[in-house]
Amino acid sequence: MLKQAKGRIGRNAVLLALLEEEEEAEITAHLESLQWRYCKGKVGSMELQKIVASIETAAKRNDVVNGELYREMHALYHAVIEAMQGVTRGQVDLGDLMRTVGLRFAVVRGKPYENSEEGEWIAVALYGTIGAPIRGLEHETIGLGINHI
Amino acid sequence: MLKQAKGRIGRNAVLLALLEEEEEAEITAHLESLQWRYCKGKVGSMELQKIVASIETAAKRNDVVNGELYREMHALYHAVIEAMQGVTRGQVDLGDLMRTVGLRFAVVRGKPYENSEEGEWIAVALYGTIGAPIRGLEHETIGLGINHI
Amino acid sequence: MLKQAKGRIGRNAVLLALLEEEEEAEITAHLESLQWRYCKGKVGSMELQKIVASIETAAKRNDVVNGELYREMHALYHAVIEAMQGVTRGQVDLGDLMRTVGLRFAVVRGKPYENSEEGEWIAVALYGTIGAPIRGLEHETIGLGINHI
Amino acid sequence: MLKQAKGRIGRNAVLLALLEEEEEAEITAHLESLQWRYCKGKVGSMELQKIVASIETAAKRNDVVNGELYREMHALYHAVIEAMQGVTRGQVDLGDLMRTVGLRFAVVRGKPYENSEEGEWIAVALYGTIGAPIRGLEHETIGLGINHI
Amino acid sequence: MLKQAKGRIGRNAVLLALLEEEEEAEITAHLESLQWRYCKGKVGSMELQKIVASIETAAKRNDVVNGELYREMHALYHAVIEAMQGVTRGQVDLGDLMRTVGLRFAVVRGKPYENSEEGEWIAVALYGTIGAPIRGLEHETIGLGINHI
Amino acid sequence: MLKQAKGRIGRNAVLLALLEEEEEAEITAHLESLQWRYCKGKVGSMELQKIVASIETAAKRNDVVNGELYREMHALYHAVIEAMQGVTRGQVDLGDLMRTVGLRFAVVRGKPYENSEEGEWIAVALYGTIGAPIRGLEHETIGLGINHI
Ligand SMILES: [Mg+2]
Ligand SMILES: [Mg+2]
Ligand SMILES: [Mg+2]
Ligand SMILES: [Mg+2]
Ligand SMILES: [Mg+2]
Ligand SMILES: [Mg+2]
Repeated sequence: MLKQAKGRIGRNAVLLALLEEEEEAEITAHLESLQWRYCKGKVGSMELQKIVASIETAAKRNDVVNGELYREMHALYHAVIEAMQGVTRGQVDLGDLMRTVGLRFAVVRGKPYENSEEGEWIAVALYGTIGAPIRGLEHETIGLGINHI
Repeated sequence: MLKQAKGRIGRNAVLLALLEEEEEAEITAHLESLQWRYCKGKVGSMELQKIVASIETAAKRNDVVNGELYREMHALYHAVIEAMQGVTRGQVDLGDLMRTVGLRFAVVRGKPYENSEEGEWIAVALYGTIGAPIRGLEHETIGLGINHI
Repeated sequence: MLKQAKGRIGRNAVLLALLEEEEEAEITAHLESLQWRYCKGKVGSMELQKIVASIETAAKRNDVVNGELYREMHALYHAVIEAMQGVTRGQVDLGDLMRTVGLRFAVVRGKPYENSEEGEWIAVALYGTIGAPIRGLEHETIGLGINHI
Repeated sequence: MLKQAKGRIGRNAVLLALLEEEEEAEITAHLESLQWRYCKGKVGSMELQKIVASIETAAKRNDVVNGELYREMHALYHAVIEAMQGVTRGQVDLGDLMRTVGLRFAVVRGKPYENSEEGEWIAVALYGTIGAPIRGLEHETIGLGINHI
Repeated sequence: MLKQAKGRIGRNAVLLALLEEEEEAEITAHLESLQWRYCKGKVGSMELQKIVASIETAAKRNDVVNGELYREMHALYHAVIEAMQGVTRGQVDLGDLMRTVGLRFAVVRGKPYENSEEGEWIAVALYGTIGAPIRGLEHETIGLGINHI
Repeated sequence: MLKQAKGRIGRNAVLLALLEEEEEAEITAHLESLQWRYCKGKVGSMELQKIVASIETAAKRNDVVNGELYREMHALYHAVIEAMQGVTRGQVDLGDLMRTVGLRFAVVRGKPYENSEEGEWIAVALYGTIGAPIRGLEHETIGLGINHI
């Protein structure tokens, strides 16, 4: 069984991505108290590849995942692609479809289930804007990918 | 240009869907002060059709959209489908893929751009769990669809 | 090389599906003069399966394809699915996504290439409306699938 | 309720894209008489981005849409992507899948519903060929996207 | 690094699904010698749900996965869906698209990497026929999904 | 009706792609005895286009298809794309999604049905690894596309 609201990994990741820097202290303190690993960053691009690379690099540098272990990178990769599905809503493509994104991302790794045997899971949350490569011609977008790790 | 954080329609919709009932007062007070129309509800099903119908019915009953005008229902429909892309991440399908969802949804209608000529937009946010049709075998999921209305 | 406008199989199929009965005489006379096989029909449903079945049945009954030969049914099937992609634009699904269609379809079989060795090809054209299962809440839609046969 | 055949926006857009220049006078005169805005153009490319840009540029230059208003560009953009779904039938991608298109496009903006409160809608129609980047190795393709604007 | 041919989990799963019963002794002996868990079965249906359920049930009954642990069922589920992508090639759908499958499936769980820290992975292989719901109107199809577990 | 195991075109193509060079003699001898045309090759890339081009070039050079006839190239092309669906499982994309493949491919052309009027069919099988563009961070993948030719 999933834990209640504050013990939820996806909810924490989404709030971390969604909240402004000045609002996030409560969430980060909460994640620290849970001893869950996490990181947060920003990336803007018309190239999907750069989004994936930025998130993977941040997750490795902040020890959210072990970059030497394919097992962990595989779990993270699929979570990133699932999150991008929410952001792109239909075709996982940016520049080819003449659109660009400006995203804040959060990666959280922890134990969201009551049963400790369910082990660790990873959540990737993305929040920002998507639109034409012209400032202002854009609307908001969100995505969340979750995987066992 | 999109307004800053609190004036953002997607962010407000996501928070409304994400927060527990006891936490949502701040958001709903904020939406009231903006004079934006909104509604919130819950739906659980293995049938996509029921999810779409629940959201459409709630939005009509709460005067977020005018159910007599195809123009408005068309805007809402596409926002719902885009939100379901985030929830389903790849195939917009539930029961056929042996999975079920338990979702909280929020629909918000307002003016998220600085330029008032950009007019009204609608946001559909979904948050909850997706998984096997067995209690507990599930993880979180989120989706956001945005459209001009 | 494809033949010019009037010798094109897709264009003829689309016009046949698009034109009202009172307008179609010119197209059908033209197809007769080319000795190309064709059929036209109507189908409305929330179930994709019925659309596929209606087109296949009409094509078999009108000897546009030989229903005993998988080779021919395979060519027709893939052309139908490709045409449905244009109609559904993203998810090849109707009722699960709470939408229904009312379509006119045309199937045309002929030799659209200058080089006679290119042999016979089949075109499936669909034109009609797609929308909510409520009269009037709908817009137009089109699709074309083409295959060698 | 949608108007009858000649009052339909998608049908007019498809005919405009489908007909040869010497055949289109009847359609354009009809669109003028309805006082509907429209434009027509040609584009060939292995890059989807160029197709999108060509249509958007033509629609802005011919005052079919207001390029300063995201609301209008958003409506046009989604109509273009829906039309490209019909053209690409499965993966909205060209060069990566080793294929190229040569398309005629038409954009029409008008009031296709009996009820004047349904307001303006926009239709994007594409017709041409798709195939290998070798002259002659290609077949026809069509797409139609419709949106409220 | 992945192990060489015989130590590969996907290759073993595909061969197990592909080979006739009288040919499979070599593979099963090899899997036993590796002490990898596996199972094999058959399922035919127009309903995707039944395919997913058959594979999950077989994998649980044969102790390839622990049905009590969502972590394991999640790993298996995504591997099944990935395998179905290969089988369905575009739309993960059967009956709605008027097609049915007759499949042999194999699930294999083992350690396919040189580095033992990469731990256990699971492979789901599907092989059989797909086609119209009429005997003989069908062609072969294959799919493979792989996940860390 | 499809022929039994050894007469099956997809099974032969998959085995040809799957088996190591030292194991393939039995399959190639069998294909020779059936007088079926075939070829085998290797390709590794982050660009889908190169995969498609390599297979098409090999099939033309080995007279499995006639490169002058669009009919044959069209049959091969769709079989290649269907095989790539199995390899990519969801989005037919490589580099944009930060992944690369190392594949062995086999193309087989023959008569897999009892009824000789079903004529020739073509099968494209792909087997290899997919993963991050870092050696070792990869798992296996397979795909099979089949078409009438
Ligand atoms: Mg999952
Ligand atoms: Mg949008
Ligand atoms: Mg084609
Ligand atoms: Mg629509
Ligand atoms: Mg993977
Ligand atoms: Mg097929």
